[in-house]
Amino acid sequence: MNYYSTQISKLIEELGRLPGIGAKSAQRLAFHIINMPKEQVEHLASTMLDARSNVRYCKVCQTLTDKEICPICSSDKRNQKVIMVVENARDLAAYEKIGKFDGVYHVLHGAISPMLGIGPQDIKLKELMLRLQGDVDEVIIATNSSLEGEATAMYISKLIKPAGIKVSRIASGVPVGGDLEYIDEVTLLRALDGRIQL
Amino acid sequence: MNYYSTQISKLIEELGRLPGIGAKSAQRLAFHIINMPKEQVEHLASTMLDARSNVRYCKVCQTLTDKEICPICSSDKRNQKVIMVVENARDLAAYEKIGKFDGVYHVLHGAISPMLGIGPQDIKLKELMLRLQGDVDEVIIATNSSLEGEATAMYISKLIKPAGIKVSRIASGVPVGGDLEYIDEVTLLRALDGRIQL
Repeated sequence: MNYYSTQISKLIEELGRLPGIGAKSAQRLAFHIINMPKEQVEHLASTMLDARSNVRYCKVCQTLTDKEICPICSSDKRNQKVIMVVENARDLAAYEKIGKFDGVYHVLHGAISPMLGIGPQDIKLKELMLRLQGDVDEVIIATNSSLEGEATAMYISKLIKPAGIKVSRIASGVPVGGDLEYIDEVTLLRALDGRIQL
Repeated sequence: MNYYSTQISKLIEELGRLPGIGAKSAQRLAFHIINMPKEQVEHLASTMLDARSNVRYCKVCQTLTDKEICPICSSDKRNQKVIMVVENARDLAAYEKIGKFDGVYHVLHGAISPMLGIGPQDIKLKELMLRLQGDVDEVIIATNSSLEGEATAMYISKLIKPAGIKVSRIASGVPVGGDLEYIDEVTLLRALDGRIQL
């Protein structure tokens, strides 16, 4: 790309490495950044560096936070005895947005996937087991409804059940507003198997 | 968004201000940046700052460059007597990618738009007129085929023609591979008007 100056080409290249940013978007972003007021670019750069430097795992639930213990784990308004297990911090955010769950979370940072060589030791399972030695009423497994998510849910439930702790799994079925016609067979079957008596 | 740490929320907010980055993309990018090796984040930040600090307008063609005169304007392989006028550096890049045009460019950094209050004095027209005092054979106007682009082309051609310099406009019509059925009426009409005898 020698039709841009080296600095612009470099910036386009760097931006193009980010997920979901294709060649065209990288180009548009680069030109936008070059035309931004200098202080704004400095602010964006320092925000990136700050976040990267200061964000770490919460000592309790392993979510990303800038404190030792995240606001949810340190809140006395949350029921610390109900733990929802999620794959990553974005899934945690998805449930937090609803604002209806008053328990706490445990972020695995991944799911078991023999295909990708990710075993139980590669996700934050040890940390979950440690938490369960405390006073816990229920573990709600909210891993994704994918092959890996299901395998992880299965594995965790087998691990926890013998300890006598209640384990549940979020429901799987037809999404609200979903048109049966366009829903895949596995989901339809899952919805049938999971039917609730009225 | 208090379900993330302040640092993450800030980063998501900053990224979400960039063009074409929605809330979901900003979130994904933020988490990606937080999980990137620290040196890579530092590199990305410094590339952004470098580009912003060092990139300026080429003294001749006004494109963005990190030298006083851009590589195209300072190349002796390019015909400095043929100037293609484009709206912005991305349009220049689009023609450069083809690699078939051996003249030079002039970047206007915008187009005349009475609607948006952009007049001839707000784009790099003065700089073009200055260049035309030198030895120029032809000016090819390659502004966009939009209302603003057409108005700009018209304005420039009226300005240059009296000076006795050849002025041309890139062709407008049905794009190659385009299906007539799906092409707008204005383009169809333009293609008809611009028909070439075989």
